[in-house]
Amino acid sequence: MNMDNVFSYLPFKRFDLKVNSMNVKAIFDPQSVVLIGSSTIREKVGMASPQLFRSVTHNMKKFFHGKVYVLDIDEKAKHNSLSKMRRIPELAVIMLPSTLSLSQAEQCAKIGVKALVMITGGYKNHQREHLLKLREEYGIRVLGPNTIMGVINTTNGLNTTFESDIMPKKGSIAVISQSGGVGACILDWAYFYGVGISKFAFVGDKIDVDDVELLHYLRKDKDTKVICLYMEGIKDGRRFIEEAKKTVKKKPIVALKGGITQESAHRAKSHTASIAGSDAIFDAAFKKAGIIRVENIEELMDAAIALSKQPPMHGDNVAIVSNVGGPAILAADAIVKNNLKLATLLEKTRTKIERLYPGVDAANPIDMIADARAERYAKVLELVLADKNVDGVLVINMLKSCFFEPNDAKVLPKVAAKYPSKPIVDVPAGGQDFELVYNVLSNTRIPLYDLPEKAAKALKVLRAYAKIIEK
Amino acid sequence: MNMDNVFSYLPFKRFDLKVNSMNVKAIFDPQSVVLIGSSTIREKVGMASPQLFRSVTHNMKKFFHGKVYVLDIDEKAKHNSLSKMRRIPELAVIMLPSTLSLSQAEQCAKIGVKALVMITGGYKNHQREHLLKLREEYGIRVLGPNTIMGVINTTNGLNTTFESDIMPKKGSIAVISQSGGVGACILDWAYFYGVGISKFAFVGDKIDVDDVELLHYLRKDKDTKVICLYMEGIKDGRRFIEEAKKTVKKKPIVALKGGITQESAHRAKSHTASIAGSDAIFDAAFKKAGIIRVENIEELMDAAIALSKQPPMHGDNVAIVSNVGGPAILAADAIVKNNLKLATLLEKTRTKIERLYPGVDAANPIDMIADARAERYAKVLELVLADKNVDGVLVINMLKSCFFEPNDAKVLPKVAAKYPSKPIVDVPAGGQDFELVYNVLSNTRIPLYDLPEKAAKALKVLRAYAKIIEK
Repeated sequence: MNMDNVFSYLPFKRFDLKVNSMNVKAIFDPQSVVLIGSSTIREKVGMASPQLFRSVTHNMKKFFHGKVYVLDIDEKAKHNSLSKMRRIPELAVIMLPSTLSLSQAEQCAKIGVKALVMITGGYKNHQREHLLKLREEYGIRVLGPNTIMGVINTTNGLNTTFESDIMPKKGSIAVISQSGGVGACILDWAYFYGVGISKFAFVGDKIDVDDVELLHYLRKDKDTKVICLYMEGIKDGRRFIEEAKKTVKKKPIVALKGGITQESAHRAKSHTASIAGSDAIFDAAFKKAGIIRVENIEELMDAAIALSKQPPMHGDNVAIVSNVGGPAILAADAIVKNNLKLATLLEKTRTKIERLYPGVDAANPIDMIADARAERYAKVLELVLADKNVDGVLVINMLKSCFFEPNDAKVLPKVAAKYPSKPIVDVPAGGQDFELVYNVLSNTRIPLYDLPEKAAKALKVLRAYAKIIEK
Repeated sequence: MNMDNVFSYLPFKRFDLKVNSMNVKAIFDPQSVVLIGSSTIREKVGMASPQLFRSVTHNMKKFFHGKVYVLDIDEKAKHNSLSKMRRIPELAVIMLPSTLSLSQAEQCAKIGVKALVMITGGYKNHQREHLLKLREEYGIRVLGPNTIMGVINTTNGLNTTFESDIMPKKGSIAVISQSGGVGACILDWAYFYGVGISKFAFVGDKIDVDDVELLHYLRKDKDTKVICLYMEGIKDGRRFIEEAKKTVKKKPIVALKGGITQESAHRAKSHTASIAGSDAIFDAAFKKAGIIRVENIEELMDAAIALSKQPPMHGDNVAIVSNVGGPAILAADAIVKNNLKLATLLEKTRTKIERLYPGVDAANPIDMIADARAERYAKVLELVLADKNVDGVLVINMLKSCFFEPNDAKVLPKVAAKYPSKPIVDVPAGGQDFELVYNVLSNTRIPLYDLPEKAAKALKVLRAYAKIIEK
């Protein structure tokens, strides 16, 4: 028995954050996991079902690098067979109707399981209190209940979600979602678009492990560079702000808040039992904490991708380098709308570009004309990055209506690497064009957006993070 | 020789709009087309090139249902062989450097070609004036110059773009784009996401055929239900507003305006030789004309899809029917942000739903819980649509974290068909989830969006159009 286990029998109140975090670690990084569900019980309206149990088991067996135990419970089961195990699993994932889940949780706590991931919802208040008592009495940590999806760790293959065979690409973005549905949407988005993920935590009703502790854990997690939050409510605003403040000094936090209107706040309350609070209060709290706020899931992913791949932008001045006129104009509009500025290029930069490419008007936004290929992109981008009036660059390279070929895009990371302190974002605008260039650049440090307006927002986020860390 | 041709020799000033439109018709609906380019000439910086000529020829031969002639011009060519043709082509597509293009245009005008699509740019003012003189003297109509992509008509296969093999799906959305790049991006978007298109017109410098005439033409085009505009500037604001006013009574117009900031307006001027004017003036003009304004290309497509598939929304009250809580809360937030209202359901509607599905809280937004399948969707959606307090419905059906299967979505158009005056939009939120449901519903009248916020904006557009036609 290691130190964790010794401590996990001590009553809750003596725990300090350090010890707490050791058991929080068991949620993401257990050596062994027991899955407790049922192949016979199905809730009438609710998640507990043989299908759910089967899928979680399938995923864990397929992806998880550690040991997996499976306990199939039936309606009459009073006890499980955990106590007979030679090795006590560190983590239990429980996916039964609430009453049965509770009795299983209690048995896990008693034998020294370190942490619980409670998948199913529908808990009454006294049941939530019961879970909290286990937490106090045995030190067992609880994620949930009502997490729906539980937890993912792309490093060790832990995946308690029930989407068969869905595992996001390994990367440096961590996600904490209070909602299973929003979390699932983010997971689907990340999986589909190949966004690199380090950890997912679906916190649900967060009666025990909450955003504060997860921030604390993720701040120290070497696999995580950016933290994404979806939240509907928060228990202890002051602690949250303090923890976030410490975190953003090391890595950025991007947050999406649900339940910002009176009507939806009412729903949020019944949804995850959280008191949503006024939107203005959250906005102020996010600002105070240095958290970057976004408006929807796509913006959350877009921001996280930019922050995970590019440096902060230490000034407002953006140059636009494009092979098409109209989209460059839309980009310029978006830059200004996002409170950034169109860089005024040095005279010598303009002159050099115009001498190299007669016919090109090198006033920012620079329209290099539709026949620009790799060589023109490389030369112009390098001149623009070298310009001291430029803090960041928005590149547009369309294929349609242009002569640009997907492989031409390979010059972008090469040139960018020479100017590591100036962010670059790229826009192969459209549908197929985006996909073709994405296939070439997705594993580089150049973030890609399918419209100029999204890239401008990404630069806004990189500017915002610079201001946060400059404080 | 038909009437069109007789008139086309009369001087410009005697033309009335009716006659003009007859030759505008030749741009979209010619019996025969001549492609005039070169397999040897390549501009140093510019579009004219053997590659462009080859691709346009390829597309026209592949897609166009009418007769295609090809003229390959070399540097020394003073005359083309058009005058020797037995049948005069109705439309000429010219894609040479400006000086050569002009001499070819003149010969086309002289032999009675009805319309020109001028692909290439780089025209000087006196060259533009030369083109206008041809127009005045011979009645020949000019699209462009600097259209880059020219024109597409999905009904007769006319496609003068140089993206080999790219033809959008036939549908009811027409697009007029002042920018080749933005037009190409819209084309790519439409092609990639299977958006149904009737006509594309890339108007470029619009020295002759402009938005006003195209609106006039498209208003009467039976294949077109919705008109999308990308514009940077306008020549005759008053005529444009008058024409738009007439048009929106019959079909909606959605507009994206480029060059809204001082800096980008400067670029718009050099880009398509248009005087952009202040953004506020455009905003007022759009409002006066009953044009729905959007912020980017995705919103343009999203709005057009909604308007082409669903009725206008004759009230503010939206019901949200979902199988997930969090995304429903985000949808509710977005509904309110877009100045719509969350419908207050009738007591009897709530009671019926809650009696049918114990555990479901039927306060709007309705979270039907993650195990909702086709049957629950059908029953709840029908009850909600029948509720007189509901003017439109935003449906969310996620697959991930839920038991919903793609084919379950088939109930949506079935139920919707019973309530043809109330709009419905659907959100299979995420990446793969969206794609899976899209494969089932893309050919129905249900518009699909990958995030709740986009669907809320679509409803806002349907509400806006109802207000426009109610005027």
